[in-house]
Amino acid sequence: MATGNPNLPTLLPIDGVKIAAVSAGIKTPGRRDLVVFELADDCNVAGVFTQNRFCAAPVLVSKAHLSKAKPKYLVVNTGNANAGTGEQGLKDAQSTCTAVAECFGVTAEEVLPFSTGVIGENLPMDRLLSAIPETKAALTEQGWEEAASGIMTTDTRPKGGSVSFDYQGHTIKLTGISKGSGMIQPNMATMLGYVATDAGIESSLLQALLSETTTKSFNRITVDSDTSTNDSCILVATGRSSAPKIASREDELYRIFKEKLQELMVLLAQAIIRDGEGATKFVTIQVDNARTAEEALEVAFTVAHSPLVKTALFASDPNWGRILAAVGRAKIAPFDLDKLEIFLGDVCIVRDGGRASEYTEEAGQTVMDQEDILIRINMASGSASETVWTSDLSHDYVTINAEYRT
Amino acid sequence: MATGNPNLPTLLPIDGVKIAAVSAGIKTPGRRDLVVFELADDCNVAGVFTQNRFCAAPVLVSKAHLSKAKPKYLVVNTGNANAGTGEQGLKDAQSTCTAVAECFGVTAEEVLPFSTGVIGENLPMDRLLSAIPETKAALTEQGWEEAASGIMTTDTRPKGGSVSFDYQGHTIKLTGISKGSGMIQPNMATMLGYVATDAGIESSLLQALLSETTTKSFNRITVDSDTSTNDSCILVATGRSSAPKIASREDELYRIFKEKLQELMVLLAQAIIRDGEGATKFVTIQVDNARTAEEALEVAFTVAHSPLVKTALFASDPNWGRILAAVGRAKIAPFDLDKLEIFLGDVCIVRDGGRASEYTEEAGQTVMDQEDILIRINMASGSASETVWTSDLSHDYVTINAEYRT
Repeated sequence: MATGNPNLPTLLPIDGVKIAAVSAGIKTPGRRDLVVFELADDCNVAGVFTQNRFCAAPVLVSKAHLSKAKPKYLVVNTGNANAGTGEQGLKDAQSTCTAVAECFGVTAEEVLPFSTGVIGENLPMDRLLSAIPETKAALTEQGWEEAASGIMTTDTRPKGGSVSFDYQGHTIKLTGISKGSGMIQPNMATMLGYVATDAGIESSLLQALLSETTTKSFNRITVDSDTSTNDSCILVATGRSSAPKIASREDELYRIFKEKLQELMVLLAQAIIRDGEGATKFVTIQVDNARTAEEALEVAFTVAHSPLVKTALFASDPNWGRILAAVGRAKIAPFDLDKLEIFLGDVCIVRDGGRASEYTEEAGQTVMDQEDILIRINMASGSASETVWTSDLSHDYVTINAEYRT
Repeated sequence: MATGNPNLPTLLPIDGVKIAAVSAGIKTPGRRDLVVFELADDCNVAGVFTQNRFCAAPVLVSKAHLSKAKPKYLVVNTGNANAGTGEQGLKDAQSTCTAVAECFGVTAEEVLPFSTGVIGENLPMDRLLSAIPETKAALTEQGWEEAASGIMTTDTRPKGGSVSFDYQGHTIKLTGISKGSGMIQPNMATMLGYVATDAGIESSLLQALLSETTTKSFNRITVDSDTSTNDSCILVATGRSSAPKIASREDELYRIFKEKLQELMVLLAQAIIRDGEGATKFVTIQVDNARTAEEALEVAFTVAHSPLVKTALFASDPNWGRILAAVGRAKIAPFDLDKLEIFLGDVCIVRDGGRASEYTEEAGQTVMDQEDILIRINMASGSASETVWTSDLSHDYVTINAEYRT
């Protein structure tokens, strides 16, 4: 199941980025499961990666290569995460880079590898390596849609988006794709996300932009609280737009660009939640007036992870006692319970330490019957606000994860 | 669903404790839903209560009364938690105490109230109050079994146990009952637990005994990570045994008694997990050689709460990559991944940073096919060990909590 619009919007090509998506038969014969991005010379590239201590082999190799050279190629396989694979996993990730490097005439350090899929099995290197040469002929600037499909695992739909805006008569474009459906509570990154822009952006600024916009997008979503071993998000700036280069936070264009990038990142992150495993609801949890941002996030994620809140959402049951109990067990400093307010959409459910006097079951039911639901919590103890997005806990979530080994 | 032996063992009467279980028709007409404990004069009573900030009204009143007077009566209703009910909830809990006090000729402060059931609805005071007089004639030392049933909510079976031992020719008995099935991650207490002994134990020592044994029993279980608003556990020492009184931690009998009490508390806590909502597996997660007890608990609970681990357990799927990913996202200080070992029963699944070389899917499957499963994690970074118990995440858990408002 999934919520919202299932159709992939038009993805704008980004000058300087070519993409190929081919079939290597890694897990399912015939489906596209191997994606290569070719980046023009002088692109700047930034990356953020999972904070899970068990980083997958490709994450370790990508981080190492990114610190040594400017990436020219990204190579992504689905169907196998190459995680929990020890020494052999590292060798396989490196061999993949070497094969891409030889195919395209660059060094192995100029290649970043990414994998997603089942944990704990070795990559089928023969199939993977033999498919790499095919990608050369398949490279195209129009490849974003096929790549969006080519990186899916339990995803039921491809996810992507584009933003385009004019600055002083120059057009700047941003396009991104993401994947992920289960094992989703990204920590400093998403399951897999690739965003490119034709803006020219200085390298350290690009990394800061990626980190800051990831924090408020991919790091604010959760399907099941399980942080993956493979989360990675890459931001490429090709500099092919005729717009002025962005070299400093003081640039007017920096502010505008960051806003547009944030918009695209939120779109890609929300798309993962809309396609969360078994999702029938898209839930926004907004915590206002908390003492600190950390406390706002602790409250929001405690509610977002509560199996009782999530099953009530699945049932469209305005069982507000479960939300209140979740807020009450969040690990934060004591606060004034009598000032706390909780809203379902516009309907106040909790006030003065108990059920709001004007609350009616009918009003709560009307909100819960919707597909998109807002839970708003006013802590009344400070000025920090944070928003996270999550899905519900449905029979399909259990079915998908009990019957299918991802 | 539930795991293990469904039968309630014989519960030994405790001299000095009489119990009545009657029907007040609070939620379901005809079922026993109101339980009164009568404690003989000079009983010592200790209590531990939920750390959820939204304490239910009866928890607030019980804590206040316990600090002012020696309890003579405990009154417990199921079907309604009297939580999230604000001022009216406090008045109702106090009125309940007053009614019991008038019925039995004691003061309201000598009565402790407890409630469990749906959150956010007011107690049906007329029905509750009119049933209290019935309890007087029903009081009996043989009432433990009926009380074990009378405090159930979504529980599928009553839970209780007794321990009896001799000390220097004197017999000491302990009997306890517990309830709870969902919204279970007790924090300093259980959903509801009542334990009595005929041992004589000095009051402050009794409180310490309860706190310490609760920590290693009720505070080590989790069904769904949701800490209830109503958790309470009460320990009564009637002093009617002919055995010497326990007045100091230095007493030989203190050590023996504590061991027996711990055994009973673990039995009651595990019974809640065996009857966890939708449970098809009883899972022990043992973390050894951690740097600190806090880190051992963080790792154990992260694994225990992982929806992906819990659905794999439901499927009897030896999907060890999910266990590894959960350990990797636990919020603890960095540790040596290459030294970590994970075992399913006696089968080593992770060693040297990846799948153990001798591991076979068949060996893992054999363990996962069992009803009782041990996951053992050797952190190899210190000397602290902790054990927690949990259940799996099944379709029945979703059904129970999506179709049924508790």
